[in-house]
Amino acid sequence: MKAKPKTRKKVRSRLVKRQSHKSGLPPGTLVHVGDQMMDHVRMTLLDYDEERFDERQLERIEDAYPYKASPTVTWLNIDGLHDISVIEKLGKQFCLHGLTLEDIVHTGQRAKVEDMDTYLFVVLRMLTYSEETRTVQSEQVSFILGDHMVLSFQETVGDVFDPIRDRLRHAKGRVRKCGADYLLYTLLDAIVDNYFDILEKIGEHVEALEEELVTAPDEGTLHEIHELKREMIFLRKSVWPLREMINSLERSESVLIEKSTIVYLRDVYDHTIQVIDTVESFRDMVSGMLDIYLSSISNRMNAVMKVLTVIATLFIPLTFLAGVYGMNFKNMPEIGWKYSYAGFWLITLGILVSMVIYFKRKKWF
Amino acid sequence: MKAKPKTRKKVRSRLVKRQSHKSGLPPGTLVHVGDQMMDHVRMTLLDYDEERFDERQLERIEDAYPYKASPTVTWLNIDGLHDISVIEKLGKQFCLHGLTLEDIVHTGQRAKVEDMDTYLFVVLRMLTYSEETRTVQSEQVSFILGDHMVLSFQETVGDVFDPIRDRLRHAKGRVRKCGADYLLYTLLDAIVDNYFDILEKIGEHVEALEEELVTAPDEGTLHEIHELKREMIFLRKSVWPLREMINSLERSESVLIEKSTIVYLRDVYDHTIQVIDTVESFRDMVSGMLDIYLSSISNRMNAVMKVLTVIATLFIPLTFLAGVYGMNFKNMPEIGWKYSYAGFWLITLGILVSMVIYFKRKKWF
Amino acid sequence: MKAKPKTRKKVRSRLVKRQSHKSGLPPGTLVHVGDQMMDHVRMTLLDYDEERFDERQLERIEDAYPYKASPTVTWLNIDGLHDISVIEKLGKQFCLHGLTLEDIVHTGQRAKVEDMDTYLFVVLRMLTYSEETRTVQSEQVSFILGDHMVLSFQETVGDVFDPIRDRLRHAKGRVRKCGADYLLYTLLDAIVDNYFDILEKIGEHVEALEEELVTAPDEGTLHEIHELKREMIFLRKSVWPLREMINSLERSESVLIEKSTIVYLRDVYDHTIQVIDTVESFRDMVSGMLDIYLSSISNRMNAVMKVLTVIATLFIPLTFLAGVYGMNFKNMPEIGWKYSYAGFWLITLGILVSMVIYFKRKKWF
Amino acid sequence: MKAKPKTRKKVRSRLVKRQSHKSGLPPGTLVHVGDQMMDHVRMTLLDYDEERFDERQLERIEDAYPYKASPTVTWLNIDGLHDISVIEKLGKQFCLHGLTLEDIVHTGQRAKVEDMDTYLFVVLRMLTYSEETRTVQSEQVSFILGDHMVLSFQETVGDVFDPIRDRLRHAKGRVRKCGADYLLYTLLDAIVDNYFDILEKIGEHVEALEEELVTAPDEGTLHEIHELKREMIFLRKSVWPLREMINSLERSESVLIEKSTIVYLRDVYDHTIQVIDTVESFRDMVSGMLDIYLSSISNRMNAVMKVLTVIATLFIPLTFLAGVYGMNFKNMPEIGWKYSYAGFWLITLGILVSMVIYFKRKKWF
Amino acid sequence: MKAKPKTRKKVRSRLVKRQSHKSGLPPGTLVHVGDQMMDHVRMTLLDYDEERFDERQLERIEDAYPYKASPTVTWLNIDGLHDISVIEKLGKQFCLHGLTLEDIVHTGQRAKVEDMDTYLFVVLRMLTYSEETRTVQSEQVSFILGDHMVLSFQETVGDVFDPIRDRLRHAKGRVRKCGADYLLYTLLDAIVDNYFDILEKIGEHVEALEEELVTAPDEGTLHEIHELKREMIFLRKSVWPLREMINSLERSESVLIEKSTIVYLRDVYDHTIQVIDTVESFRDMVSGMLDIYLSSISNRMNAVMKVLTVIATLFIPLTFLAGVYGMNFKNMPEIGWKYSYAGFWLITLGILVSMVIYFKRKKWF
Repeated sequence: MKAKPKTRKKVRSRLVKRQSHKSGLPPGTLVHVGDQMMDHVRMTLLDYDEERFDERQLERIEDAYPYKASPTVTWLNIDGLHDISVIEKLGKQFCLHGLTLEDIVHTGQRAKVEDMDTYLFVVLRMLTYSEETRTVQSEQVSFILGDHMVLSFQETVGDVFDPIRDRLRHAKGRVRKCGADYLLYTLLDAIVDNYFDILEKIGEHVEALEEELVTAPDEGTLHEIHELKREMIFLRKSVWPLREMINSLERSESVLIEKSTIVYLRDVYDHTIQVIDTVESFRDMVSGMLDIYLSSISNRMNAVMKVLTVIATLFIPLTFLAGVYGMNFKNMPEIGWKYSYAGFWLITLGILVSMVIYFKRKKWF
Repeated sequence: MKAKPKTRKKVRSRLVKRQSHKSGLPPGTLVHVGDQMMDHVRMTLLDYDEERFDERQLERIEDAYPYKASPTVTWLNIDGLHDISVIEKLGKQFCLHGLTLEDIVHTGQRAKVEDMDTYLFVVLRMLTYSEETRTVQSEQVSFILGDHMVLSFQETVGDVFDPIRDRLRHAKGRVRKCGADYLLYTLLDAIVDNYFDILEKIGEHVEALEEELVTAPDEGTLHEIHELKREMIFLRKSVWPLREMINSLERSESVLIEKSTIVYLRDVYDHTIQVIDTVESFRDMVSGMLDIYLSSISNRMNAVMKVLTVIATLFIPLTFLAGVYGMNFKNMPEIGWKYSYAGFWLITLGILVSMVIYFKRKKWF
Repeated sequence: MKAKPKTRKKVRSRLVKRQSHKSGLPPGTLVHVGDQMMDHVRMTLLDYDEERFDERQLERIEDAYPYKASPTVTWLNIDGLHDISVIEKLGKQFCLHGLTLEDIVHTGQRAKVEDMDTYLFVVLRMLTYSEETRTVQSEQVSFILGDHMVLSFQETVGDVFDPIRDRLRHAKGRVRKCGADYLLYTLLDAIVDNYFDILEKIGEHVEALEEELVTAPDEGTLHEIHELKREMIFLRKSVWPLREMINSLERSESVLIEKSTIVYLRDVYDHTIQVIDTVESFRDMVSGMLDIYLSSISNRMNAVMKVLTVIATLFIPLTFLAGVYGMNFKNMPEIGWKYSYAGFWLITLGILVSMVIYFKRKKWF
Repeated sequence: MKAKPKTRKKVRSRLVKRQSHKSGLPPGTLVHVGDQMMDHVRMTLLDYDEERFDERQLERIEDAYPYKASPTVTWLNIDGLHDISVIEKLGKQFCLHGLTLEDIVHTGQRAKVEDMDTYLFVVLRMLTYSEETRTVQSEQVSFILGDHMVLSFQETVGDVFDPIRDRLRHAKGRVRKCGADYLLYTLLDAIVDNYFDILEKIGEHVEALEEELVTAPDEGTLHEIHELKREMIFLRKSVWPLREMINSLERSESVLIEKSTIVYLRDVYDHTIQVIDTVESFRDMVSGMLDIYLSSISNRMNAVMKVLTVIATLFIPLTFLAGVYGMNFKNMPEIGWKYSYAGFWLITLGILVSMVIYFKRKKWF
Repeated sequence: MKAKPKTRKKVRSRLVKRQSHKSGLPPGTLVHVGDQMMDHVRMTLLDYDEERFDERQLERIEDAYPYKASPTVTWLNIDGLHDISVIEKLGKQFCLHGLTLEDIVHTGQRAKVEDMDTYLFVVLRMLTYSEETRTVQSEQVSFILGDHMVLSFQETVGDVFDPIRDRLRHAKGRVRKCGADYLLYTLLDAIVDNYFDILEKIGEHVEALEEELVTAPDEGTLHEIHELKREMIFLRKSVWPLREMINSLERSESVLIEKSTIVYLRDVYDHTIQVIDTVESFRDMVSGMLDIYLSSISNRMNAVMKVLTVIATLFIPLTFLAGVYGMNFKNMPEIGWKYSYAGFWLITLGILVSMVIYFKRKKWF
């Protein structure tokens, strides 16, 4: 029982970010809204072109500056948003708008893309599924697509980009031959592909619940349905804006995105629609499950009550009969007869049997 | 009971394709996502114009290459998608985009059309209805419409195209006189026409369930309604994207589609709308059936409970009366009276009859 | 009970037309889909201008050919669609597209208009209401608007056009002074006006049901609500496409429709919207009725159960008391007292009366 | 009880106008559809400009003709639509289209505006709220905005325009200084403002019902909720088309509406949206009330049943115990003991008290 | 209980503003619609540019006139709308349209923006959350954005603008360097940011209710869910128009808004969408809670009823048995046997134990 309130607390804070300490500050003031999830900021820089590949952990953000002008593609990944000074320095160096910086550190943004002429700002949510609590958690990931440059910002270490890093290291696939826009696409693609993995796990949960619903529904089933419903509300809230975001990325006429990349973005868009379709189907299924649960429980209850009531109904007339012959009237001739007691039992059994047959025929139990 | 979990497993995998072994691979990597449904790939080639008709089973995909340049219409049908090398060779020979190839083998696509300038890529779902499990199964069918050329890809042998093959063989209808775009239309038309057959079968199921609902609803009825609802969710998910797809095919300005074919595509579009209308009507009817089921069950339960309760209510006051004359008070004058026992029975019957009349008049049973 | 399954069968076939014998045939093949409703085809020709009026029953379709070129307005009405040769000959003579002919004989089309350059093809559903089964039946009506020419196709004899025929015969209203497009408008207007008549009858049914709901709801009421709901599903399916159809007719830029007729079409459009509004209002009312029914039934059930339970509850403590003085303990001093029996009755009545008062005050029965 | 069916009859006829006697007549034939609400037609003419003001009751419609050409603004109000000849003469004199005249007398129109080049035709519904039956009644009001001329048509005497007449008489506000379009605006504004009054009254009803729901819900509450729901259906049907109508009036590019009036029309439009918002909020509240009612009733029922069942459950084991010592076995040693009767009572009370405590602790009553 | 009706009264008046005393007056007549919330009007003027800052409380509205022409940015805030003369004078001095003035004093406006060429008129609702009654209250705030000038109108003293005043005083952030349009943005931003605070508080309420729902649901929970639902209806009504309003502000091509401010408005727009998303998620959660509540209550009731019924069912057959041996038949051989009484108890306990085991195994209690 201890675990439950904790889960619920998480649920709420997934829907509204606490930002009380933020309101009242001028727009563009950088304050990190969200939980600080790690001790110090980790900065990883990957620099590559078709021939060369370079990977470094940066100590100071200033070490990244020289890469700005290089003709190679540079991917700078920042894990941890609580150290505002890092973000501010980056912002100054790469000429980022104050609102962009605010959106990066103010986690809880809706997925969106913003064309700021010299760079594209993309923000979306990366999901993780906790098998234990069966809840979906989300983390905000922001991207800056500049000229030959991708900056990515995450709240914590750990992401779905490792396969892409591998591909960059070993020059697998097209990614080393293409520009920064293609890198951005692969990163987005990895996040959306990860949504399918999560849907698969939720699908397993749905399947298990349906099984339980048929074999042994109890009050726990109800709460699981309720929690699944809540996960759906949360998923929808994360997934729907994605569609709009990737669509406007695909249609953006920014010079930063090459024509050949558009077709790949359309592919990500198709995947997003598939994700949305699946979430909607799950929603429909879960609300169907609630109906089934309610009527199963009610059917079961009815069955029990019917049996119990039938038993009571069988014995009440007989108890009356026994009561009659327990009366002390002086003038009760049948009392003295020899076979009247045996006759009482015969009549009793006769009534019992005929009532049972009648009830059986009526399918009352 | 064994069969049920199986059915359910299928249901889930119909909604989300397992693709765990795929995530992390670079885009454009060809991995078949879906169940391998057959042993080896079957390639059938039909080549025709108004005068000539040629039909062959190909051993190697290379045998299809010479037909590429021929002025006759060529239809190459591939059954089985697990042999990636065949798809790759075809892709190279016919200059197909990597994402197109990925969409072909990655079954679970939403119906869509993509204009790739030199070819049109069309993907949709072909449905089959299993009378036994009363479920709808779907298979992905992809088409490449090139210059004088249609490539079609299916997951397994067996489709709804046999009448079209017949018509080609015997030069029935317009199809031999028209180009590859008309062939594509007839193939799409066959798939959509097949949807009506499936709706007809589901309609029969709905009809049978409505019958059952009126005559003998039980818990099985509830589960059938639930499963029908789930089929509707699945059908909607397959059918709605079709509308958009055929609409954008009709409006596409590709040179590969002749003007005279547009009117036929509009006809397919009309059929798709009819399919969607019918699915939506079924959905409405099924959710109406749930209401009816619930209140029928509740009415029946109430009827039983009322009869039982009435019986108990009739005898409880009488039992009290019998109890009274079973008391051992010394000073109970009526005990000694001559006709008091007969009087007891008279009163008892009187109470019984008047209560029955009262309850009858109140329509309580 | 015999009648019910029949009604239900009709319902299904109203939603999906059986077309199993059709699938697989090449598009444009003329096969009549639907029930053959009459023995032979009846062809009626009306030919008129402002001065002249001519009306004939045609024996052979060839008799209609000479009217094609005449400057007068010709209305050829065909009742019965099963004789494919008639439709085919007409198609050839008047240069109708294969798909148009297919749509005419393949009843079950959604309402639509198609601009085929040389003619406009309009298809919609004409409704009839059977007072007996309280169901709405529909029949497909197709129109071809050519130059000075309207062809109309119906599944069976009997329609809502008699007043128009009268007006033509007696040169009432504007219709004799206007062209074929105005004739088409009057025909459409007659069909849509007829929808109001049907809504009026359904409105009476709704009213009667509401009455019944308040005075004497029983299980039959539930089934009537369910059937009314089903009629609404059917009506919606017929009516919604009409809106789109008449709108696109009004906006079509075909030369066949004169500017002065547009304003009349807009009027039909307004009527269609009114029909849709009313259907939607009825739907809302019917689903409100279901709620009322369910809670009325449940209220009534509760009332009965409460009374019965109160009776049982009144007597159970008294029965216990009687039981106590039926015990055979040797040492029960009150047994021997002179007024203890009278006292028992006093106490019993006291308990009874005070419980009744308590329950009454609590409004428990 | 007499009043109820009457109310219901009105409800239906509010949704569908009986027009049986109309169908079959040629379009443009003037037949008054609706109830005749008054004996003779009342015609009131107001003629004014900034300096002059003239008000007259007309005997014959011909008296209005001279005002047609005058440069002053003329407002002719017709109360009563059953005298077709008046409408026809007006139509001829002011060159109104046949369909316009039909829409005027055929009450039951959806709110709409039609730009007929030489005049604008506006039709909408004026609502009145009957405190007694708590129903909303509606009356069709039609306006013709011509050059310096507004014609208004109402079904019966009595409207919401008296304050406007006053302002015209006493030259209050801008209305005497502006043209006919501004007059039309003030008339529309008065009708829409009146909607707020009606919403306020319905709001009071909703408030009263909510009060009742908390303090004393009974079956009457259910019927009131149902009737309120029906009023909402009716209100929505009247209000939604208004939005579209006023929007298209605002956007119409008719020369009859001056630019300076547009901003006033936008204001009416804003009010209409507010009305719609409020109706939708009421709808949401009313359907929430139904949920509350149902669960309140069910809670109350449950509470009663629980108390009754608890009483029965308390006494049944005790009755058994009393039954045991009423048995006539010869060999029952406790029967003869001195304190066994007192002991019986002690045990009985012990069982009773401990069960009561147990049930109380479990919060069963 | 006293407090409740009061709350409810407030609810209604939040949905419909009483304006009975207004209807009938000519448009543009200034009448304050709403509760007078303060004694006298408070006028605060802030005048600033990058170097200078001036703050004054005005005694008379005429003191504000000189600032009209000054090149510095002037913000005049009016608290209290009941003194019409102040509004009228302002309107005359700053050339405001009559309808603008009407909208300012006629509180209850929907959020909207109106481009009046020489100024922009913005109206929206500022929310406050009362922890005590757990209700959201709203106040209308209107803005006039003129050249170098912002006028703001509030119903009462107390707002969310204090941090902005602070920033202006101490020249924090960008606001002193930018124009009046940026000031308007910061004011709007403060209002929308405040929405998040309110959502956070409602989120806490939702969380507390969910807790209660799991641990101890009672009828109070139901009413809290109902009231939460009503708050959601009210919030939606306030929030949805905001989206449209800020969107049209962002897209307005008024010269009063500089290009550089547009990106900030887009940021406010994003926040509005987030607010709407959260409100919708809450709505979904609250309606899920109702389902959970209803079935929890029903489960609990069922559990109680089952236990009680089981107890009754256990004793009824035993009572019958005791009744049998209480009969007075002369010829009952078992009566005289030595161990028959002990045997009776053995049989009784045997029946009791086996029934308990049977019921336990069936999980009936």
